[in-house]
Amino acid sequence: MKMIFAVIRDNDNEAVSQALVNKGFRVTRVASTGGFLRRGSTTLMVGVSNEKVDDAIQVIKDSTSPPDESGIKRATLFVLNVEHYTQI
Amino acid sequence: MKMIFAVIRDNDNEAVSQALVNKGFRVTRVASTGGFLRRGSTTLMVGVSNEKVDDAIQVIKDSTSPPDESGIKRATLFVLNVEHYTQI
Amino acid sequence: MKMIFAVIRDNDNEAVSQALVNKGFRVTRVASTGGFLRRGSTTLMVGVSNEKVDDAIQVIKDSTSPPDESGIKRATLFVLNVEHYTQI
Repeated sequence: MKMIFAVIRDNDNEAVSQALVNKGFRVTRVASTGGFLRRGSTTLMVGVSNEKVDDAIQVIKDSTSPPDESGIKRATLFVLNVEHYTQI
Repeated sequence: MKMIFAVIRDNDNEAVSQALVNKGFRVTRVASTGGFLRRGSTTLMVGVSNEKVDDAIQVIKDSTSPPDESGIKRATLFVLNVEHYTQI
Repeated sequence: MKMIFAVIRDNDNEAVSQALVNKGFRVTRVASTGGFLRRGSTTLMVGVSNEKVDDAIQVIKDSTSPPDESGIKRATLFVLNVEHYTQI
């Protein structure tokens, strides 16, 4: 299992979260702030099985909107390995 | 060392944090939101030595309350490896 | 690539974030709370290439202020491995 930390723009929060949930991904959202431009952002934590990582990234790609300004990215994604996963 | 990301219900935040601290665990709390039901949740980040992971999970189990509704889990836990840990 | 989770005191948030950004590091900030003393803290997520981890830690060291009280640390740092990193 992997955990994707996806830092997205606030504007895209609803669309991306909804798209991920619609595809069966579990999403936890955290309000965050960029360090440089101090824009509001949202950090999504998405727990996914190894074989679904590419799918989840594609969903995020497809559900983010093009930034108004050049030089701004839609999303920054970090994929980390999860050693153990459990629900209580 | 491991880092446990524990997504718990807001209701359980105080009890779980207190129980972990009482057992000597260091806890950092972040307000979060579930992606699907959009309930408020709390994400705890707990840094633990390898041999204490099971203890920490047990503390979380013991200090969460049963959800009112069926199908809701008490907690979702992700255990990630920490390559380097330091305090300044 | 690594991700550094740095839990710092709120007081140091601006100085540390600015120092990291000035050195070219990408920082995402999340408001957090200590589990024990329940002080406000900030958790910085810093994505860094493997060879820059020590630099980033040094920047954090240099930009935090000494705590007023003894027994309080300036920062707690967890370095986790990132398996895959991408920007969209």
